[in-house]
Amino acid sequence: MKAAVVTIGDEILIGQIVDTNSAYIAKALDKIGIAVLETRSISDERTHILETLAYFQNRVDVVIVTGGLGPTKDDVTKESFCEYFDDHLIRNEELEAHVVALIEKAMKRPASQMNKDQALVPSHARILYNEVGTAPGMWMERADTVFISLPGVPYEMKYIIDNAVIPALIEKYERPYIIHKTIITHGQGESLVAERIEEWENNLPEFIKLAYLPNPGRVRLRMSARGTDEALLQNAIDAEAEKLKVLIGDIIVGFDEGETIEVVLGKLLKDKGKTLAVAESCTGGKIAQMITSVAGSSAYFKGSAVTYATEAKVNILKVEQQLIDVFSVVSSQVAENMALKAKQLFGSDYAVSTTGNAGPLKGDSAVEVGTVFIGIATPKGVYSERLDLGQPREKVIERASNKALEKIYHEILKN
Amino acid sequence: MKAAVVTIGDEILIGQIVDTNSAYIAKALDKIGIAVLETRSISDERTHILETLAYFQNRVDVVIVTGGLGPTKDDVTKESFCEYFDDHLIRNEELEAHVVALIEKAMKRPASQMNKDQALVPSHARILYNEVGTAPGMWMERADTVFISLPGVPYEMKYIIDNAVIPALIEKYERPYIIHKTIITHGQGESLVAERIEEWENNLPEFIKLAYLPNPGRVRLRMSARGTDEALLQNAIDAEAEKLKVLIGDIIVGFDEGETIEVVLGKLLKDKGKTLAVAESCTGGKIAQMITSVAGSSAYFKGSAVTYATEAKVNILKVEQQLIDVFSVVSSQVAENMALKAKQLFGSDYAVSTTGNAGPLKGDSAVEVGTVFIGIATPKGVYSERLDLGQPREKVIERASNKALEKIYHEILKN
Repeated sequence: MKAAVVTIGDEILIGQIVDTNSAYIAKALDKIGIAVLETRSISDERTHILETLAYFQNRVDVVIVTGGLGPTKDDVTKESFCEYFDDHLIRNEELEAHVVALIEKAMKRPASQMNKDQALVPSHARILYNEVGTAPGMWMERADTVFISLPGVPYEMKYIIDNAVIPALIEKYERPYIIHKTIITHGQGESLVAERIEEWENNLPEFIKLAYLPNPGRVRLRMSARGTDEALLQNAIDAEAEKLKVLIGDIIVGFDEGETIEVVLGKLLKDKGKTLAVAESCTGGKIAQMITSVAGSSAYFKGSAVTYATEAKVNILKVEQQLIDVFSVVSSQVAENMALKAKQLFGSDYAVSTTGNAGPLKGDSAVEVGTVFIGIATPKGVYSERLDLGQPREKVIERASNKALEKIYHEILKN
Repeated sequence: MKAAVVTIGDEILIGQIVDTNSAYIAKALDKIGIAVLETRSISDERTHILETLAYFQNRVDVVIVTGGLGPTKDDVTKESFCEYFDDHLIRNEELEAHVVALIEKAMKRPASQMNKDQALVPSHARILYNEVGTAPGMWMERADTVFISLPGVPYEMKYIIDNAVIPALIEKYERPYIIHKTIITHGQGESLVAERIEEWENNLPEFIKLAYLPNPGRVRLRMSARGTDEALLQNAIDAEAEKLKVLIGDIIVGFDEGETIEVVLGKLLKDKGKTLAVAESCTGGKIAQMITSVAGSSAYFKGSAVTYATEAKVNILKVEQQLIDVFSVVSSQVAENMALKAKQLFGSDYAVSTTGNAGPLKGDSAVEVGTVFIGIATPKGVYSERLDLGQPREKVIERASNKALEKIYHEILKN
């Protein structure tokens, strides 16, 4: 079972937007055992679309296309599908009623002619209903390849993938199993890790593939096993993970099945019935944003004091002015005081703080660009850790935020 | 002048990471007049890499490949390049000295053999030095196509693109001009906007292309002009923008050349010498994170009180308990009070606040999922606006954050 993902839109090709649709679709397909051979972003040109559809014909079982379904002239996906499938547009009355009802409910006005024309679809298309927008998804087949066209707006695409595409694919195909296990290591570079596990890697079974995913500060090792016997795959992958523990247990900080630290941390806090607060300086709200991107986070997240200006640390967070005067605002003492004060102010069980200089300029800061202190306050006490993260700015913010969430995760796990 | 971007890595194809490299590279190429024909993400397989290089041979002038340059076994880009160019690896001593010095400086340990082996490069490759990592960039040519291989780690790729690739491309090629202008409209859907400008669109000159970019809450219209006479292109695009103002001036909220609202807002605050603070509930730190993603934001951003829990609004932000009791925590009164208190506490000129329910569940909230109030405090007073943003959660957070920044931008512009 192989698939291809094609995203259509000049805004991707001029770099105006990042294509996040491909990753979402690839992950959803991977989860049901369909391997994505390739993803492509192409222009809104009829010939380019036709050439791409033809390329994947019979090379893959499923092609998922997003974009180019708007009601405006620059959107040509439907016409291109008609041409490729030698079909023509017809007005689907059931679909039109659906679009009209949707517009009237959401916009509180009657549907325009252009809205209604969203119900013009190729006569052989199976409709994949869109409950969160007016452009429908379409499922068409030629020879042994299924072509699915979806709107490019991410939440509309996601809605149709989750509610229509994945269930239909599960029904249509028998699929192999694909199982991943990611081992997160911390503190050694890719080369060193590779040297330590070289022999193990050389002896991996044929059906297990290993990938190194270096991130600032950590290397993730992802094993992927593919086959028809799910239990066998899972056992084999677990056994190899056990061998890794013996070899590099000192640098392994966790395992994951693809979940982000904010999701894992959220589950842990919920399980333990504990709450968290944050005090951020150089991460500028990134930590709070990560935590609250998880639905249900209000159950365990109290809030964050993003005290970017020094006086805000004193006025809002009640950090002791004396500590700032004596040790400077970027110091372990201030980081610890920030964490403690956040814990008190928000009334949480745990708190984590950041203070540092994300750069790009040193400004009037006493520390080097890239220096960040993380403070950790737990029911038992407070401590801090210094990070030297270099540049660029976005790396410093991202790495400090990830590290802060990882530190607090391990603290909660211990207690 | 045409280019293709190829990102290599199974982590993209299983959806473990979002490919952000393609957009960065596409934007950098577009800026110097090189149009990206297509971007592809492919697997770490030698045959897949070779097939892709061959596909773009002579179809484009430049192919930029990222990924697969790590020192580990799963990285096969260098071997694939050797095969494609009928070349072999040699040890580049200057490069090895560079890698050794880099490791010793950054890691405070001697370079390992695997580190040193990063200096094994195809004998015909022109080296693009990487000052922020050990994997070098490589420039190779076959017939009229240039193939550039870069590391996949985003900040390493960006460093080499900015410092080596773009300067070299500017030197090598005469390029046409590509000029974009984006008109941001607010408050009407794509179909309605399209109907209002239909005649204008039909009469656009051949060399200007129009694209509709619908976002939650706004539609951006992007004109792109391509040609050899820069002044002519700019004049033509400006003239068309003037015509649009006459047609839909009532819904145009701004123009941009690809800059985000947080960048535009930052410039305005700096120009006017004004400061900003934020009080966030349902946006959970997203607004602060957007503001502080801009380098230099400490000049105008005081901070944000991310008061996710209701008691945090009272304890930290000093929102009046009575307002919450009488009007509920998601109300215009509380939004306004949050903005006012943030302005006072942080001592800023302006403040913006959010309170709402981002969903997915209604919980014990009195309002519908997707209801958000934005509060705006200015030197002259305070007011609020209600948004009904529906679902899903991520859309509510994104749209409310964007809207909050847009509102405050227009306020500052007025004063």
